[in-house]
Amino acid sequence: MAFIGIDLGGTKLAAAAFTAGGELLQRETTPLAGRHGTGVGALIVERIGKLAGQHGLDGAGVCVPGLYRARHGTVWAPNIPGWDDYPLRDELRSALGDTSLTIDSDRAAYILGETWRGAAAGARDAIFLAVGTGIGAGILTEGRVLRGHGDVAGAIGWLALDRPYAPRYRTHGCFEDQASGPGLVRVARDLMEGDTSYRGALRPHAEALDAGAIFAAYDQGDAIAAQVIDNAIELWGMACANLVSLFNPEIIVFGGGVFGPATRFLDRVRAEAKRWAQPLAIEQVRFVATALGGDAGLVGAGRLAMLGQRDP
Amino acid sequence: MAFIGIDLGGTKLAAAAFTAGGELLQRETTPLAGRHGTGVGALIVERIGKLAGQHGLDGAGVCVPGLYRARHGTVWAPNIPGWDDYPLRDELRSALGDTSLTIDSDRAAYILGETWRGAAAGARDAIFLAVGTGIGAGILTEGRVLRGHGDVAGAIGWLALDRPYAPRYRTHGCFEDQASGPGLVRVARDLMEGDTSYRGALRPHAEALDAGAIFAAYDQGDAIAAQVIDNAIELWGMACANLVSLFNPEIIVFGGGVFGPATRFLDRVRAEAKRWAQPLAIEQVRFVATALGGDAGLVGAGRLAMLGQRDP
Repeated sequence: MAFIGIDLGGTKLAAAAFTAGGELLQRETTPLAGRHGTGVGALIVERIGKLAGQHGLDGAGVCVPGLYRARHGTVWAPNIPGWDDYPLRDELRSALGDTSLTIDSDRAAYILGETWRGAAAGARDAIFLAVGTGIGAGILTEGRVLRGHGDVAGAIGWLALDRPYAPRYRTHGCFEDQASGPGLVRVARDLMEGDTSYRGALRPHAEALDAGAIFAAYDQGDAIAAQVIDNAIELWGMACANLVSLFNPEIIVFGGGVFGPATRFLDRVRAEAKRWAQPLAIEQVRFVATALGGDAGLVGAGRLAMLGQRDP
Repeated sequence: MAFIGIDLGGTKLAAAAFTAGGELLQRETTPLAGRHGTGVGALIVERIGKLAGQHGLDGAGVCVPGLYRARHGTVWAPNIPGWDDYPLRDELRSALGDTSLTIDSDRAAYILGETWRGAAAGARDAIFLAVGTGIGAGILTEGRVLRGHGDVAGAIGWLALDRPYAPRYRTHGCFEDQASGPGLVRVARDLMEGDTSYRGALRPHAEALDAGAIFAAYDQGDAIAAQVIDNAIELWGMACANLVSLFNPEIIVFGGGVFGPATRFLDRVRAEAKRWAQPLAIEQVRFVATALGGDAGLVGAGRLAMLGQRDP
């Protein structure tokens, strides 16, 4: 028998079967290929069914790229058309019958994965900071996922870190505005606009700039790229300081597409955090890179399957 | 029989006996009057003994003005000489025998008091923001006090909200630097130093300025006082936005010496928070003033007594 985890992303679905000890029995990835609405729900049912047929089914866990509203059993996933309030729990329950089913947000899965089999194994006060297209945090306190009153907790991309307020924060938050992948690009574009004499490595890419080009230009000593990275390190450090002062965690795990390449700056992020954070709390926390990488959500979904029903 | 709560402050001790239903049977206040070290411990034992003699003793709860290190049973209370690592648990245990005993930080007691018998009655995801000489937060998630890995959680005075970093944040944190009671005074002094033409209401007080004088000057239309309050409202709003985005609480209760007089600005604090916070989460939270005022800690200590032993 096996626990089956499903990590639903915006463009693909990963599925895996695990033993109770956390051993990976099988994994596979399926592109969403334009599926939307009930087509995505049907794909999840089909993938669980296929793995269950091969390995048996002790429980299923599904993580979603957005919010899971536990009270209603519905999902808000902005990158999946038709999933504004999608009744995933009822759909899966009718397919799975009495099998234990657990659904949660991807950020909850990340920290459950890392504390189960990853960089934070065994930790009970731990945070996963996911920096990619967006920024989110999966937060574990005394071994429990922090979900909040309406399952929105961990929306760290909205952290207020820098005055004055700018209207563009309205759509994605202050922290995310400058320190996510697209945020790095925004800051680079602003700096290039303000420096018409700049002829560096980023200028030719200006139309189609991405975070990868900024890290590459940084390696070549580009002045704008250095400013972008320095600015992001300050904000990542301030955000981590705020997590440290509020939660007093024992470990923060960095992941997402940007950590990744920014992992080499973790010492600088920590030094920045140390300037701002409560001095006792900063001494009690480790900053580490994800050990599971892109599999954090999938492993966490397996852990959700093992932990069982989270709904009331 | 009764539950006995002790709220130890930096200058006085409040003690009360409660019924299991939360009814106050008796309360009294004793000045520390220069007591320090074991003298303060002896006073706690004596006060518990006196109330226990009159009402019986089902359990005792004590909150302290600092950190309680649950693993070691010791207290760090910066305003009580000799309480850097004071072994309060062992001292009280040897006096109380097998009676249930619970010790925690004052900020934990504030939120337990308000959710038991105050402004947040019945709430399970609730935060008490205490703004006075310092700034701290008592945080309840799913009905449990957030304590963190080393009992330092809730150190919100250290929130990083404003770049660039200033060396004076080192001793008390960025948020506290400008938005605590002494922080308001610091900002007023800085503004007066930068405006030698200022002849307003605060100038004559400059040497012995306090937060009360700033609120009074604000009421008289003083320009410097208005800047100080506007600045603080922006920072209180940003800090609350960060609590809302990270914790998704259902209620934030404002207390401490500054709320108090700043309670009339709660609508403006909320409007400021709404600009920065995750938009779903900010719609789910209420901002309210403390219903227990200076008794929040004492009522919370009574609640600690009822909840019983928190130590491992």
